[in-house]
Amino acid sequence: MKDLAGSPGTITGLVLRLFQCLFAAGSIASMASTNSFFNFTAFSYLIASMGLQVIWSFGLAFLDACALVKKKALHNRVLVSIFVVGDWVTATLSLAAASSSAGITILYFNDLGGCGFGQECQKYQLAVALAFMSWATIGISSLIMFWTLAAG
Amino acid sequence: MKDLAGSPGTITGLVLRLFQCLFAAGSIASMASTNSFFNFTAFSYLIASMGLQVIWSFGLAFLDACALVKKKALHNRVLVSIFVVGDWVTATLSLAAASSSAGITILYFNDLGGCGFGQECQKYQLAVALAFMSWATIGISSLIMFWTLAAG
Repeated sequence: MKDLAGSPGTITGLVLRLFQCLFAAGSIASMASTNSFFNFTAFSYLIASMGLQVIWSFGLAFLDACALVKKKALHNRVLVSIFVVGDWVTATLSLAAASSSAGITILYFNDLGGCGFGQECQKYQLAVALAFMSWATIGISSLIMFWTLAAG
Repeated sequence: MKDLAGSPGTITGLVLRLFQCLFAAGSIASMASTNSFFNFTAFSYLIASMGLQVIWSFGLAFLDACALVKKKALHNRVLVSIFVVGDWVTATLSLAAASSSAGITILYFNDLGGCGFGQECQKYQLAVALAFMSWATIGISSLIMFWTLAAG
């Protein structure tokens, strides 16, 4: 397997994982600090999905860091297959969660003529924006992983 | 490039494309037959995204059919690259549209205690379900395409 930028055990891979963690954690923090998120199925789903994202990305960041410190390659075919499946599942869930929350946010802001939850509205928007940023980084990771597996 | 099931110019590829068309067209028909979809940004976006899906999938189904009739392989590297990009873009847009519409449908059915649009509620649900089925088939197609490109 070639040593593609962003593949497991590289510095770019580690940075991508850390960004995924950061954005997902920010999204959870922003959403969980509102008082009414549990009234909306999509917002609760966003928190669950971003929680899974944090756990997955943090685990892989830890593995990347270990591989970098020990200077060991993580290019085992079975390991990369597991990474690919995990990446695709979390990426799909993240996009679905971000989109469904965005749908509701836009419904309240545009379609129903303004959001009536006061201060919480900005927090909803921030959480959705961070979720999309988290999805973008996991999307890049999963494309690189899939390429590494297929071309390896 | 290997002749993977579902890759361009194969019968399974053609069947996948036809299912994508069918589901997407059904989703548009179901959503467009309601009187109030244009009040919801997400529902309008669903129609736009499914429209793009129909055009893209129909175009590729046509190409597949031509290749099958003429018994010509479609395994040109540049052509497959274009298919991969188009597939990924339409798949992402379809998932985003289906999820945002599902978020709103669930908001009305569950969170706000029942949908008040009468007959139209079933149509919304049907449109969302068909959009998810269209996404599932385009998702399979795009994974196969990406694999064909990377392994070719």
